[in-house]
Amino acid sequence: MPLYITRMRTNHFGMADSGWPGCAKSLKGVILDLCGVLYDSGEGDGVAIPGSIEAVKKLKESDLQLRFCTNETQATREKFVAKLRRLDFDISVSEVFPPAPAAIAVLKERGLRPHLLVHDGLLPEFDSVDKTNPNCVIVGDAAEKFSYQNLNEAFRVLIGLEKPVLFSLGQGRYYKETDGLKLDVGVYMKALEYACDLKAEVIGKPSPTFFRSVLNDMGLKPHEVLMIGDDLLNDVGGAQHCGMKGVQVRTGKYRPIDERHPAVTADGTVDNLAQAVDMILSQRGH
Amino acid sequence: MPLYITRMRTNHFGMADSGWPGCAKSLKGVILDLCGVLYDSGEGDGVAIPGSIEAVKKLKESDLQLRFCTNETQATREKFVAKLRRLDFDISVSEVFPPAPAAIAVLKERGLRPHLLVHDGLLPEFDSVDKTNPNCVIVGDAAEKFSYQNLNEAFRVLIGLEKPVLFSLGQGRYYKETDGLKLDVGVYMKALEYACDLKAEVIGKPSPTFFRSVLNDMGLKPHEVLMIGDDLLNDVGGAQHCGMKGVQVRTGKYRPIDERHPAVTADGTVDNLAQAVDMILSQRGH
Repeated sequence: MPLYITRMRTNHFGMADSGWPGCAKSLKGVILDLCGVLYDSGEGDGVAIPGSIEAVKKLKESDLQLRFCTNETQATREKFVAKLRRLDFDISVSEVFPPAPAAIAVLKERGLRPHLLVHDGLLPEFDSVDKTNPNCVIVGDAAEKFSYQNLNEAFRVLIGLEKPVLFSLGQGRYYKETDGLKLDVGVYMKALEYACDLKAEVIGKPSPTFFRSVLNDMGLKPHEVLMIGDDLLNDVGGAQHCGMKGVQVRTGKYRPIDERHPAVTADGTVDNLAQAVDMILSQRGH
Repeated sequence: MPLYITRMRTNHFGMADSGWPGCAKSLKGVILDLCGVLYDSGEGDGVAIPGSIEAVKKLKESDLQLRFCTNETQATREKFVAKLRRLDFDISVSEVFPPAPAAIAVLKERGLRPHLLVHDGLLPEFDSVDKTNPNCVIVGDAAEKFSYQNLNEAFRVLIGLEKPVLFSLGQGRYYKETDGLKLDVGVYMKALEYACDLKAEVIGKPSPTFFRSVLNDMGLKPHEVLMIGDDLLNDVGGAQHCGMKGVQVRTGKYRPIDERHPAVTADGTVDNLAQAVDMILSQRGH
């Protein structure tokens, strides 16, 4: 992980218009992370974080463009958005950017046929993709499917290739579910990297390519957009590395030590999404 | 893995007595790797490599001390040696140095109680070890036991410790069995290292501590001992890093590209153990 250093600066009038929350005046768009910002995952659909449903509504009613950028890889985009809608969020499929569709675009561009080590829930996303005689491996958050046998199988595909290519859908270390901490995709990415002595290509946050695809869709420049997330490195650091501002919420996987991180400093830290949105809109005179 | 650079040198009389095979004249002991040098693993007990049974016998009849140093962690030392004896090797338990007994010594020295992620065959080795309320994790070549659930469990123990300690019994990437390549312990060590943001302590080859424990048992100095193995990095590089000479055999996991490795150069490369032993004994006038 490269290290991104950004600190809040005031301009020479002593005002913080290039920092948080002053920067909100000149924003044209906002990108939100989903899990840990809008809702907490767990049994069934999980639960909405208080105030977040209303906050999304307020952003949609404003003149700001809004997109959602997530490393979710356990379900297709359609199923994932359906879950968020059941939680009462006003979100449509075209506004949500997870790694799998980005990966499919890369496969097409480079003529690659994947061997998939992903969650069963994600498989339909790859229905239209040629998977015969694979010449690359895609690893996602496969959870229970991360068996010794399945990992060996992915390894054998890679080691049998003249130029092995490994894509990882995100690079998270672990996440929390109701029954405890669970290892995330990054752990298995590192395992395969070591086994095959290669470096994986990460598709998803914090990859700059991934953030830029969202900016492209918005038709906006990095300095016109603010990212709000609960993950200091993948959300905030990744966005800042792209030239965006990054604000961290104190929900989801936020930990107090994030505010003293040696390499990444959020442009702002707020209690939750509701507070962030209120600050943005108040700066803009709403 | 640190990089060890050693090349064969001739002395200023133009003779190679400090190199291979001239160095055999002044040797006092030999350490042999087992799998890939004495035998190939596979169905049942595996098969002896041609000439190796006789070669071990010749070394035992010589005035050289002999020890066996292995990263085998799928069975207790007793069961492992019994297998080698069934293959007709004249080997006794006290001559064989695998990682597990070394790990147990470290646990006792540091007052640590392990959570074990190891092969069922290795469990009896830890019978006498206090495993209640674990304050470290030991990972070995657990093979089929490397399930998502078991890896999560080891991870949760580590992440729950104030000062997480992870021991890895070796750090191999993969090995070959009759039904194909299998991921080795190093891959899961890397996975847990990344998940917990820590560095594992490797017990086994190429750890200098591990080699030194064998030298201590022989009562010899590194320059008096030669290591013969099929693994360029773990056997040859590890031994050289300790001040021993290291010779690679062209059996087991040897690959021709090993002879052009950018960082590790064996003091000698021989077709098999039989050839190595004949060269050693011929230098010594046998």
